[in-house]
Amino acid sequence: MKLNCDMGESFGRWTMGKDADVMPYIDMANIACGFHASDPDHMAKTIQLAVEDNVEIGAHPGYDDKSGFGRRSIPHSAEAITRLVAYQIGALDALCKLYGGEVSYVKPHGALYNDMMSQSWIFEAILSAVADLNQYRSAPLKLMILARRDNQQYIGLAAQQNVELLFEGFADRAYDSDGLLVPRAQAGAVYHDSLRIRQQVAELAVGKITTIDGNTLELDVDTVCVHGDNDESVAIVRQLAEDLAHVQD
Amino acid sequence: MKLNCDMGESFGRWTMGKDADVMPYIDMANIACGFHASDPDHMAKTIQLAVEDNVEIGAHPGYDDKSGFGRRSIPHSAEAITRLVAYQIGALDALCKLYGGEVSYVKPHGALYNDMMSQSWIFEAILSAVADLNQYRSAPLKLMILARRDNQQYIGLAAQQNVELLFEGFADRAYDSDGLLVPRAQAGAVYHDSLRIRQQVAELAVGKITTIDGNTLELDVDTVCVHGDNDESVAIVRQLAEDLAHVQD
Amino acid sequence: MKLNCDMGESFGRWTMGKDADVMPYIDMANIACGFHASDPDHMAKTIQLAVEDNVEIGAHPGYDDKSGFGRRSIPHSAEAITRLVAYQIGALDALCKLYGGEVSYVKPHGALYNDMMSQSWIFEAILSAVADLNQYRSAPLKLMILARRDNQQYIGLAAQQNVELLFEGFADRAYDSDGLLVPRAQAGAVYHDSLRIRQQVAELAVGKITTIDGNTLELDVDTVCVHGDNDESVAIVRQLAEDLAHVQD
Amino acid sequence: MKLNCDMGESFGRWTMGKDADVMPYIDMANIACGFHASDPDHMAKTIQLAVEDNVEIGAHPGYDDKSGFGRRSIPHSAEAITRLVAYQIGALDALCKLYGGEVSYVKPHGALYNDMMSQSWIFEAILSAVADLNQYRSAPLKLMILARRDNQQYIGLAAQQNVELLFEGFADRAYDSDGLLVPRAQAGAVYHDSLRIRQQVAELAVGKITTIDGNTLELDVDTVCVHGDNDESVAIVRQLAEDLAHVQD
Repeated sequence: MKLNCDMGESFGRWTMGKDADVMPYIDMANIACGFHASDPDHMAKTIQLAVEDNVEIGAHPGYDDKSGFGRRSIPHSAEAITRLVAYQIGALDALCKLYGGEVSYVKPHGALYNDMMSQSWIFEAILSAVADLNQYRSAPLKLMILARRDNQQYIGLAAQQNVELLFEGFADRAYDSDGLLVPRAQAGAVYHDSLRIRQQVAELAVGKITTIDGNTLELDVDTVCVHGDNDESVAIVRQLAEDLAHVQD
Repeated sequence: MKLNCDMGESFGRWTMGKDADVMPYIDMANIACGFHASDPDHMAKTIQLAVEDNVEIGAHPGYDDKSGFGRRSIPHSAEAITRLVAYQIGALDALCKLYGGEVSYVKPHGALYNDMMSQSWIFEAILSAVADLNQYRSAPLKLMILARRDNQQYIGLAAQQNVELLFEGFADRAYDSDGLLVPRAQAGAVYHDSLRIRQQVAELAVGKITTIDGNTLELDVDTVCVHGDNDESVAIVRQLAEDLAHVQD
Repeated sequence: MKLNCDMGESFGRWTMGKDADVMPYIDMANIACGFHASDPDHMAKTIQLAVEDNVEIGAHPGYDDKSGFGRRSIPHSAEAITRLVAYQIGALDALCKLYGGEVSYVKPHGALYNDMMSQSWIFEAILSAVADLNQYRSAPLKLMILARRDNQQYIGLAAQQNVELLFEGFADRAYDSDGLLVPRAQAGAVYHDSLRIRQQVAELAVGKITTIDGNTLELDVDTVCVHGDNDESVAIVRQLAEDLAHVQD
Repeated sequence: MKLNCDMGESFGRWTMGKDADVMPYIDMANIACGFHASDPDHMAKTIQLAVEDNVEIGAHPGYDDKSGFGRRSIPHSAEAITRLVAYQIGALDALCKLYGGEVSYVKPHGALYNDMMSQSWIFEAILSAVADLNQYRSAPLKLMILARRDNQQYIGLAAQQNVELLFEGFADRAYDSDGLLVPRAQAGAVYHDSLRIRQQVAELAVGKITTIDGNTLELDVDTVCVHGDNDESVAIVRQLAEDLAHVQD
């Protein structure tokens, strides 16, 4: 099970995230593509860090909304979403070529991610961008989505388009017995304690998670999302990387 | 000699240029890439028009400046220019893949074009983006620059990077005896009369141009820049296309 | 009854609307404030036109969304809407002072207008901006909203804040018997025929409108919204201005 | 002599500067106006901090360039600069009215500040915005510029427009014997040592500064620019505020 982290979300003179500090401990870097965050310079810098640390590069496209950091749902047609996503993947892909990197997967950001999980036509629009680009690639792009108990429809759609999915779990978010993330507004939805986070990651690694109400949830995940916002969260990611190295020995 | 035209410069609800009307008469469409103009939807629409009319597609990257339409010189480092250009080429390239098109050349826009011609380090920075991307392409991108008498330095630099140049003339701009465009501020710098424009294109086609002071200038051009802003200019382009068809018979 | 028209919606090199042509025939210019459209230069130009033609100036604030022209609903908190609106009014007000003009009312744009009419907390947030600014003004700003049969709640809220409302009707949109605009998607929702438009404006002027199903609707409006997009619509506005001049003689 | 500090330069989810920490120790807050940085929400937050701590509020307008943080010179006409500045002052002024604050001065930002000091027509364009707005204000806006030995021309122009100037010195920048700031690229141009910074502020307070080459420079300043970027610089500002309190006792 791999650790993925949102990266390259600085913009101009504004810094976000301790990218250089957290990069050595993760496996997959979801790099912002200049729409919800980043710009060609920060994308280039982040690609170079990923290449140095041998970290997989993913495109992290979002709505075109720097003011709202891509966390606000903005109405788009299906075609507009396909174009929005393709544009951003292509831009990151070209920058990768300047530094010997390569995009290997796509993880939508923020509101676009949530909209993809709640409306299958948005998932299909994103899938369509990935599938069309894959026709021109020797190494096809994968698409990362939220691991849920009821992903059958999405798995079927992806299979039709011949796109491989990656299923993502969350290190610091509580799950309910239906396999859904507990909404942030609810008490206990977000884990802040590093031991609790380590426990969840250990559980995700074997596919059996303790839910918020004490049950056991079976969930297969390929990768778990971690954060590198500050020194504390970087320390946790470092610890998680060590824990997983032991598990995987 | 081919006709090239700036296209896809609408943005959101704002329309610029009669793209659909002029597309049938040109050979090469320089498509804006979302920085000085355009957005993923207008780029997609323009690509589709080009594919339908079998027109070559070029990336038309500019400074990130919609307010100024890319006509204001904005200070960048060499590396930042390489990234700016690569980002935009990559974005257009990905959108082309949605519609069966392909980017075959790059023509910088506005102030970036002028800066490229006046400062060779900016030319080198753009060249570097093209050369790096070409390493991954079976059909390499060409780079379009202004045809001048004194392009030896630029030709040398491009040869070192193994990038093919395309030389561009202007249909409606007067040349002086040194082979430079007469500055717009000077009287007679811009031709408005369609007969004069047709004469200049005919002259460009054979590489001998009558300059503003009545001399003959030898200049080899691969392509001539035309405009599709309004009904009148579209009519001129149509006429130029017919003229060239006869010449080339 | 006054004619109001959205104005100043050009942006940079992109032109929208025949502002100079329509200005002589309208009474109130709703001037975009740089968020959904316009920029300081286009705002200045439009103010100057309005001052010359002695047209009242209204602030036309929208969501910060040039890509979507302010027609997409973007989630905001109530406080954020109050700030968004105050910012834009203040900006226009300052530009007016350069040219001897004065903002006298506020009409929200596009999705912000629709959201204001469908969610009273958004109306309250906008009202709050207007009321706070009015404390510093000798000539208080009015707030323009859609004339409806059921505006009692909004009238009450405005009265509490001591803000005068202006009620707006539409020249080219069909009404239903409940006094609501027929949704654009429905057949017959938009009038294109100039005679039908003139009839509706004549009816609005006396407060009795023929609805889409042939009934008579009583509706008091202070102003009717017209468009100056193209030569045809400008001609209609000119005719409406003449019609109203006769009525009001 | 007052301490002024650039504030409110966060944008959306991106934070810049420890505004809340430094506000208690300064006298004048130069608040970004949404063009080079900030947005209505961050402006509002910063205004509220300033009002709480009884700090004077200044408009800090910049070029419309978030990517470059207003540090890149962007070509504008004189009229466009007047409008750019008026727009931003008006926007901040309106937000102030929501929170009981008031704009009392204007300090241009970054490249606009530098351009103002190097080209008198840009100074005049800014002055024109301030003068025009002052006609409508009971408390006129002042304009902050760099204290130099040779400000006679600027003083004359401001007097003609009846605008009061504020002269600004820098706490952490070395001066040369001509009274100019030593260019950042030169060794010793920026003071990092807190004792050296305190010495310079003490010298500025009495109008006699030790230059980089050991001479004494006479310079009258109304205010000195300090920074609140991080904990260290906040600590220095706190110390400077204490030093000045003693001096002024």
